[in-house]
Amino acid sequence: MTTAAPPLGPDRRAAAPVVPGAGTRRGVALPEVALRAGFWQRLQDVNANATLDHCLHWMERLGWLTNFDRVAHGTTGGERPGWQFSDSEVYKLIEALAWEHGRTGDPGADRLVRALTARVAAAQDEDGYLNTCYGHAGQAPRYRDLESGHELYCTGHLLQAAVARLRTHGPDLLVEVAHRAADEVCRTFGAEGLDAVCGHPQIELGLAELGRALGEPRYTDQARLFVERRGHGRLRPLPLLAPSYFQDDVPVRSAEYWRGHAVRALYLTAAAVDVAVDTGDHELLDAVERQWDRSVERRTYITGGMGSRHQDEGFGEDWELPPDRAYCETCAGVASVMVSWRLYLATGDVKYADLMERTFYNVVATSPREDGRAFFYANPLQQRVAGTDVPADAENPRAEGGVRAPWFDVSCCPTNVARTLASWTAYLASVDGTEVTLLQYASGVLSLDLADGSRVVLDVETSYPHAGTVAVRVVEGPDVPVDLRLRVPAWASGAMVRRGGVASAVEPGWTTLDGVRAGERVDLVLPVGPRLTWPDPRIDAVRGCVAVEQGPVVLCVQDTDVPEWLDLDLLVLEPAAPLVGDGDGALVTVRPVRTPERGRTYRSARPDLEPGEAVRVRFGPYHAWAKEPTTMRVFVPVAPARDTD
Amino acid sequence: MTTAAPPLGPDRRAAAPVVPGAGTRRGVALPEVALRAGFWQRLQDVNANATLDHCLHWMERLGWLTNFDRVAHGTTGGERPGWQFSDSEVYKLIEALAWEHGRTGDPGADRLVRALTARVAAAQDEDGYLNTCYGHAGQAPRYRDLESGHELYCTGHLLQAAVARLRTHGPDLLVEVAHRAADEVCRTFGAEGLDAVCGHPQIELGLAELGRALGEPRYTDQARLFVERRGHGRLRPLPLLAPSYFQDDVPVRSAEYWRGHAVRALYLTAAAVDVAVDTGDHELLDAVERQWDRSVERRTYITGGMGSRHQDEGFGEDWELPPDRAYCETCAGVASVMVSWRLYLATGDVKYADLMERTFYNVVATSPREDGRAFFYANPLQQRVAGTDVPADAENPRAEGGVRAPWFDVSCCPTNVARTLASWTAYLASVDGTEVTLLQYASGVLSLDLADGSRVVLDVETSYPHAGTVAVRVVEGPDVPVDLRLRVPAWASGAMVRRGGVASAVEPGWTTLDGVRAGERVDLVLPVGPRLTWPDPRIDAVRGCVAVEQGPVVLCVQDTDVPEWLDLDLLVLEPAAPLVGDGDGALVTVRPVRTPERGRTYRSARPDLEPGEAVRVRFGPYHAWAKEPTTMRVFVPVAPARDTD
Repeated sequence: MTTAAPPLGPDRRAAAPVVPGAGTRRGVALPEVALRAGFWQRLQDVNANATLDHCLHWMERLGWLTNFDRVAHGTTGGERPGWQFSDSEVYKLIEALAWEHGRTGDPGADRLVRALTARVAAAQDEDGYLNTCYGHAGQAPRYRDLESGHELYCTGHLLQAAVARLRTHGPDLLVEVAHRAADEVCRTFGAEGLDAVCGHPQIELGLAELGRALGEPRYTDQARLFVERRGHGRLRPLPLLAPSYFQDDVPVRSAEYWRGHAVRALYLTAAAVDVAVDTGDHELLDAVERQWDRSVERRTYITGGMGSRHQDEGFGEDWELPPDRAYCETCAGVASVMVSWRLYLATGDVKYADLMERTFYNVVATSPREDGRAFFYANPLQQRVAGTDVPADAENPRAEGGVRAPWFDVSCCPTNVARTLASWTAYLASVDGTEVTLLQYASGVLSLDLADGSRVVLDVETSYPHAGTVAVRVVEGPDVPVDLRLRVPAWASGAMVRRGGVASAVEPGWTTLDGVRAGERVDLVLPVGPRLTWPDPRIDAVRGCVAVEQGPVVLCVQDTDVPEWLDLDLLVLEPAAPLVGDGDGALVTVRPVRTPERGRTYRSARPDLEPGEAVRVRFGPYHAWAKEPTTMRVFVPVAPARDTD
Repeated sequence: MTTAAPPLGPDRRAAAPVVPGAGTRRGVALPEVALRAGFWQRLQDVNANATLDHCLHWMERLGWLTNFDRVAHGTTGGERPGWQFSDSEVYKLIEALAWEHGRTGDPGADRLVRALTARVAAAQDEDGYLNTCYGHAGQAPRYRDLESGHELYCTGHLLQAAVARLRTHGPDLLVEVAHRAADEVCRTFGAEGLDAVCGHPQIELGLAELGRALGEPRYTDQARLFVERRGHGRLRPLPLLAPSYFQDDVPVRSAEYWRGHAVRALYLTAAAVDVAVDTGDHELLDAVERQWDRSVERRTYITGGMGSRHQDEGFGEDWELPPDRAYCETCAGVASVMVSWRLYLATGDVKYADLMERTFYNVVATSPREDGRAFFYANPLQQRVAGTDVPADAENPRAEGGVRAPWFDVSCCPTNVARTLASWTAYLASVDGTEVTLLQYASGVLSLDLADGSRVVLDVETSYPHAGTVAVRVVEGPDVPVDLRLRVPAWASGAMVRRGGVASAVEPGWTTLDGVRAGERVDLVLPVGPRLTWPDPRIDAVRGCVAVEQGPVVLCVQDTDVPEWLDLDLLVLEPAAPLVGDGDGALVTVRPVRTPERGRTYRSARPDLEPGEAVRVRFGPYHAWAKEPTTMRVFVPVAPARDTD
């Protein structure tokens, strides 16, 4: 070790995924929140009680953990189980366990972190290098295949796991291991070292956050170096893939939009925000904000999903948003949240929190099955042919199929869901001076340490998103009255706030309640009834279609929810008919259209759809689709307007 | 050699790509046709004068030919240039040269066939095995990676090249080499041998046709064995690809539709027809016809293009036909022609010739640049962002980009275009007893040997597809009057035939003119004016859109053909306005729609398009698009109907 770890104890307010190195706004820390029963508490519980164990089980089963033991025992060589990046899954699981321990104090999670850390630490080389796929007997040498090797990618995840541990527990063996690994990276890839980057961004994020957590500016510098190096063609092109695949075509500072592999693009972007914030690089921050604007406008699904292409798991071009082949990788949803959260903390703009909500409810919450033991990898918005269930003990060799699978050949999504859910409460609110902002709505108690040392305790009661009322009580007041900001989502036209018996209409954006005191109650009423949502006419793939949303939740129709004679490929939605809320779904009026004559796919006459009798069918939450294999649509064609002639 | 080649001379009537082993219908042979100036003659000339040489140049340059020399000289080992399947490109070029020699007698093409054959033959192993990538010093062993190795695929193309040589020239060294290679395949993979298939079908086609050409039923048997073995999961799954990728999920005999990698699916299907015909296997033929019906109805583009996905170069699901991400590989177009031609010969159904015409004009003719030295690989129906020109001395590393490229990393398409154009005249007509059927229309003289030994000479004069009149004169009569059948394309409502001064309306399908005699003239008049074509409402990706066609030619609009203020993403077509023919294109009335408010991609109000002033713009032939990098659309949104309210 070249640097001694500074004397860090667990700072209650720093127990969160992102702690900017500059600026006054911070997210809430895990120990500051106690959720009560509700949408997210259920997801967090399932994650804690099933998913973490499930991931561990699969990693043992597939030998991804044994890989560490083999390095430790010097028995590498021969067939090594798992892809070259399987170490990263172990680190993401450790990160999830660390957050889980930080969130609940669960001693089981703590024990597992220690046990896994011991196995990981034993595999670290003398000089700090740590990877079970390269550099040992019978293995390819280190850092020879930066395009595909994923070595720095894995190290980045190791560093993130250590950050989680450091912020929820304090220095330990994992932090030491990460410290040494980060030092090895800085020595090898520093300004005087190899002038290179990793094919898959991630090390930048790990270094930036570990630099913050350990107070090591060298790590931030190295993260900055990696961010700046990228985009100049340093990576050799992979067969059949463009340099944009790993964002090596244009420097982050000059790019106009996200492109290439979505997860890579978003991890890199998140790191760029960290670097920009910590170094006061306004140009870089502006560049990322510009990319967010353009890409969210033109390259993002109604679900918040990103990545239109299966081919390279990548962004499509502007307006290329096919519902059926939407890749919308779960990991890209997680990465999008990482970007928006950093941008929110840096700028305070409500749009970032809006997109996070959309992505939470419709991508992150969509991935895990109710029991937390199967996951969506891709999240399409249309399923033409029902999938086939994957048995509980089997992997899905591919990312698709329209069913959740226990595990995947490339299994990045389950652990990404796990670490996001374990730390989800951190995104609930933010604190800036004596201003408290509620960003997401869930029942629970927020016990927040303000910058002046005082504490405010808020009790939030809501059944959101099922109902729209959010009651906020100031249970314990601060010494000085605080300003309470509430996010009114962009979709919430007609929202209302009640304070002291006075109701006022509020517009989407921020609603600020000045000088809130102990004992006060504020109600936010959001219109969560079903509504139609119309896509931009430039999204060719859903032209003439409309979607149904309910609060932050995108709805969908499945074949299992309509009469058997109704074909999801041959129905139209009657937009003038009222939508009726129905639990967590809505009753929507549709009409069948007649089956076109066979064998005339392209014809000289405009097909006469002749919609039949109206029928009400149920649209349910997209995040709960495919409880069994189904066909499904989010966007539904609109009934043709009646012509004058 | 285990079998002596039978004494075959060049049979004039057999100089054609497909000569069924049973049935009475045959395609015309290359020596039976002399084209005059016209659409296809120009393409054939460019192919002869530029493309063949261009392909040879690239293969020398990249070392794909030297690979054969290295095997011959025992200097293999180390880095071998080219993909594992590069030998197949050499064979496809030899096949193209052989057809070219057969078509025109060009001694230059003949010399090249001999020169290339000498280099190929020198690389053949003692036992008949011939592959420059496996089985020699420093190379992987033979047949260990049937999933990806492409060894039998390469051999299949060698056999096809030999078939072309045998039918246009007669036995020679190439035929000997192929004979020995085919024997080696039969020994290794016969009923008593390795129970396996190749990841990429092709050997089946080569064996079936070589069996016919050499009168070797063993080869047909081996082809049948390969066809029957497939679909039972003999191939190990490739990472991230389903078994359907190489059609190993369902036997050909039971499949309902084409799926997986489009070229693989179609090569396999073509071979299945050969096997079915030669063995009288009606069940197998019925299965292929059923697959054709379903797949052409639901998985085929208006251009005839097949393959909706870049990811696995594969078919999509039913109705999954995105215009922007249409893969429509040129090779899949070629393979589709191979299937339909075989089905036409087997059944005589006009629909197969209809699809061939559509594919010829809109896929095969679209690929080569005017000068025959650059090609499209993928043939999308919408280009959102103009590509970037690929320099004349550079490869396109990918299959996409919206521009024709001189060569590709995987460069299967140029030689597939070359062999198809060199043999194109074979698809012009068919002969069955004393019935002559004109299938495609081009100016020239057809001098046809009938089954009874007599000859009929037809002179066809037309500027089709630019104009719709096809004048057929019987220049030299047969002894007995022949029946002349003319194909009236499926799109040609309102066609007319004139014979002896009498004009009659004719319906799409066959029009038979009985007892045609020498000196007679028959005119077919096809309505080739521009027309609108409407897609099936189940093709989600082009909902609310319409295309413009002109005769067999699909039109498209490019940004270079519209005023600068008109955005291809923001215009609608006025379907009630008349279409006006304009040379090889049409003038079409469109209106701009207003740009939606920024940053509201998904909104609660239906976007108000408010179409602006009508303007006429030119739609040109899709096959001639991208003379420079452009944006482009085949399907254009239709102006909204005016509501009553």
